[in-house]
Amino acid sequence: MKINLQTLAEITGGELAGDKNFEITAPCSIDNPKPDGVCYAANTENKELLSKLAAGCVILPAAAKGKIDFKVNAVYAQNPEWAFTLFLRYFEAQNPKFDKGIHPTAIIGKNVRLGANVNIGAYTVIEDNVVIGDNTTLYPHVYIGRNTTVGAGCLFYPNVVVREGCVVKHNVVLEAGAVIGADGFGFIFINGKHEKIPQVGNVIIESETEIGANTTVDRAKIDSTVVGLNVKVDNLVQLAHNVKVGAGSIIISQAGIAGSTELGKGVVLAGQAGVVGHIKIGDGAQVAAQSGVMGDVPAGSKLFGSPAREYGEMLRVYATLPKLPEMYKELRKFKKAKEEK
Amino acid sequence: MKINLQTLAEITGGELAGDKNFEITAPCSIDNPKPDGVCYAANTENKELLSKLAAGCVILPAAAKGKIDFKVNAVYAQNPEWAFTLFLRYFEAQNPKFDKGIHPTAIIGKNVRLGANVNIGAYTVIEDNVVIGDNTTLYPHVYIGRNTTVGAGCLFYPNVVVREGCVVKHNVVLEAGAVIGADGFGFIFINGKHEKIPQVGNVIIESETEIGANTTVDRAKIDSTVVGLNVKVDNLVQLAHNVKVGAGSIIISQAGIAGSTELGKGVVLAGQAGVVGHIKIGDGAQVAAQSGVMGDVPAGSKLFGSPAREYGEMLRVYATLPKLPEMYKELRKFKKAKEEK
Amino acid sequence: MKINLQTLAEITGGELAGDKNFEITAPCSIDNPKPDGVCYAANTENKELLSKLAAGCVILPAAAKGKIDFKVNAVYAQNPEWAFTLFLRYFEAQNPKFDKGIHPTAIIGKNVRLGANVNIGAYTVIEDNVVIGDNTTLYPHVYIGRNTTVGAGCLFYPNVVVREGCVVKHNVVLEAGAVIGADGFGFIFINGKHEKIPQVGNVIIESETEIGANTTVDRAKIDSTVVGLNVKVDNLVQLAHNVKVGAGSIIISQAGIAGSTELGKGVVLAGQAGVVGHIKIGDGAQVAAQSGVMGDVPAGSKLFGSPAREYGEMLRVYATLPKLPEMYKELRKFKKAKEEK
Repeated sequence: MKINLQTLAEITGGELAGDKNFEITAPCSIDNPKPDGVCYAANTENKELLSKLAAGCVILPAAAKGKIDFKVNAVYAQNPEWAFTLFLRYFEAQNPKFDKGIHPTAIIGKNVRLGANVNIGAYTVIEDNVVIGDNTTLYPHVYIGRNTTVGAGCLFYPNVVVREGCVVKHNVVLEAGAVIGADGFGFIFINGKHEKIPQVGNVIIESETEIGANTTVDRAKIDSTVVGLNVKVDNLVQLAHNVKVGAGSIIISQAGIAGSTELGKGVVLAGQAGVVGHIKIGDGAQVAAQSGVMGDVPAGSKLFGSPAREYGEMLRVYATLPKLPEMYKELRKFKKAKEEK
Repeated sequence: MKINLQTLAEITGGELAGDKNFEITAPCSIDNPKPDGVCYAANTENKELLSKLAAGCVILPAAAKGKIDFKVNAVYAQNPEWAFTLFLRYFEAQNPKFDKGIHPTAIIGKNVRLGANVNIGAYTVIEDNVVIGDNTTLYPHVYIGRNTTVGAGCLFYPNVVVREGCVVKHNVVLEAGAVIGADGFGFIFINGKHEKIPQVGNVIIESETEIGANTTVDRAKIDSTVVGLNVKVDNLVQLAHNVKVGAGSIIISQAGIAGSTELGKGVVLAGQAGVVGHIKIGDGAQVAAQSGVMGDVPAGSKLFGSPAREYGEMLRVYATLPKLPEMYKELRKFKKAKEEK
Repeated sequence: MKINLQTLAEITGGELAGDKNFEITAPCSIDNPKPDGVCYAANTENKELLSKLAAGCVILPAAAKGKIDFKVNAVYAQNPEWAFTLFLRYFEAQNPKFDKGIHPTAIIGKNVRLGANVNIGAYTVIEDNVVIGDNTTLYPHVYIGRNTTVGAGCLFYPNVVVREGCVVKHNVVLEAGAVIGADGFGFIFINGKHEKIPQVGNVIIESETEIGANTTVDRAKIDSTVVGLNVKVDNLVQLAHNVKVGAGSIIISQAGIAGSTELGKGVVLAGQAGVVGHIKIGDGAQVAAQSGVMGDVPAGSKLFGSPAREYGEMLRVYATLPKLPEMYKELRKFKKAKEEK
């Protein structure tokens, strides 16, 4: 790929200051600039770095225009990160990562409906009665169970499993190894034995959602486990049966949500956070890393700690915690002094 | 599927109160009733919900018989959840999720013994000298290593890996992506380098056990890692080399057990709990979510916290913890007052 | 396999005390000795166990020679565990676990360069422009993306995914289900929506490194996520985009490192530990299990707790913590007494 800076300005919606015929070939980072690369800076605070920047072009905030005096080609944009993202998308589209079409080794069951421009990789298995929407790509080694529906514009990486009867809507990305619709963890203890309760519900993944590598989203016992619109779930996350995740939520790596819990819209669970089952977390709540949420959470809350409490309160607790042994000694001294009186 | 309520009563072992010819087609939940669905209620406390219940039939506790006055068809059972489970099993058996038989693309090594009625999905690979028991089903994309033995009535979902020389007994369910028998994490630091210690033991999974999606059970360094009879392991759990899990134990999602630790019978590890290596956890011990167990645990213990201690003790500690900053201030005041005397 | 004790002494570099013609067939553990097995003891403290040891041979520390008086065959070695490891490697080489050669169902893309003695299992898929070094083995169901380079002597177990453009150097072991090069978790919130930032960097895994089962190592946003030389990563670990792990580091199961964080050389993260993004952890630092690191860490530090602090300090804090409720009561008593004066 090779584009000149005029094209770059058009792709990114920015304003060019520099040589419009200069050609760049790839993105680069500001820490590792390339003479034929383009990078971005969210702000211009690091003047020294920018003045020496050996990149082919840098995308800068529009507000900085005319206020810096270095020689590199620049594109000014309202939001440099977004402008750079637009360039990355263009770059990626020029560098396809998979073969178009349906590989002859793909196994496609009976009564499967495939949309236009569907790509299916080698050894991928699609069971009976599946629907796959237009422009969806399944990498090699994907498994789609019976009666599952996949929307348009989806991208499933290798080893993705979507079990029977699930619904994946449009523009959903499932990273490698994600398992959608495994049995929920449901057993009944009877006659001295854990007996399996069949999990006959499904998983619904709304549009514009991404599920990380090796993440597991269990099917509902009955009804549906639901991952809402534009939710982003990182790697190795556990979403148990009948969980509902509201639109726009972010769930970071290794977090886990136990069964039947409902997250509102725009909730953030940081890495390794855990949430018990059968509770409700209100819209916009934020849970810090490694925190453990054990009860309902009002909208807009910010929580920290295991067990989790209000963020500021727990910051103060953790700041005081190291003084605890000294406090204990002092208390004993007081007690002794009092007893000696 | 369509069954009338007389059949439902027979399947569930309950007593019908209602129209024996009425037909239902599927399970439903009490929160989302369907006119042709059957749901259950563990008790009859929510009279308002039950009086308006628009389900085809509801399974209720036998004790409630004659004590409620609403119009829906009912089946009375000693244990409604168990009766409903029996119906779910019937329902599931009517809706097979996989093709019977051995798919022509399955690769079956030399000297493999397959039992009667074995189902093997597309692209599944079985290496040499493997034994598979009667009525066992392997979904597509399963891998079974050399010299491994799988019992009767097992169900392995897509992408399950069982490495060489392992033993899986009867009626074992391995959810998608579970890895049984990967190398234990064993290295020796010598001449300035971590050198791998070959892990030549195996994994034994006893009968009636379930292993969750993307869970990993490592092979022993020597001897065996053992997951006992009727153990239920959730998703994304780590069982390290030479771990032993006693019969009837429950290990919830994202929990981890380090090498050579032994769990007794009926132990419960809640989600994200961690257990260090080389310890013993007694029969019936319970470890709360996110807790970290760092030493031997007597039978019947209930633990909480990281590091974990007795449950009630830690409940009191965590209840007091938010007062810590205030306690610190007060102590400083006392100290100052004392110094001023 | 059957070797006599003279051969065992040669393999392990030890000195034989016993019958050089005696034959052993397999390793065994000291807790579960076999009459035709060989085990080792790191020391000779447990004299009772050793005096009754019914193993074919035991490897003992050279220092113990002549100081014990029991009848079992022995090999004396400077480091018995290392000597035993050498035997395990010999034993493993005699018991190959996979078929040599390239399985006819393996799919090999255009312009792929395969080294000498490469083994490729059934249904493994290698995309275009891949390079695979000499003596590398890919098990069945492996996926290698376009333009990826794999070095010599590597071993990738079933269901390993290495996405496009990654670099895996020599003698690297990827356990089953490991995902290398999935998209980093990068989104920009714009116009009320999380928009995906294409992750166009890659992953570089240096030589002599091992990545555990179902572990995920994300590709960089730009540049590279780097796992250094001789690093050992356990199962279900998350390494986020642009993370750098220094040579010789050990990362134990279910630990997670957030984006752009850099670990020095020889760092140890114990199980379920978490590290926030954009920080630096100095050479040789050690982080205890379940700890949460929230800021830069100097070389040689030992940390504990969530949030993590100096190990000894937190040991004292956790030792005092159970006294907190009692401390609170006492403080209230003091306060009351003071107010009554």
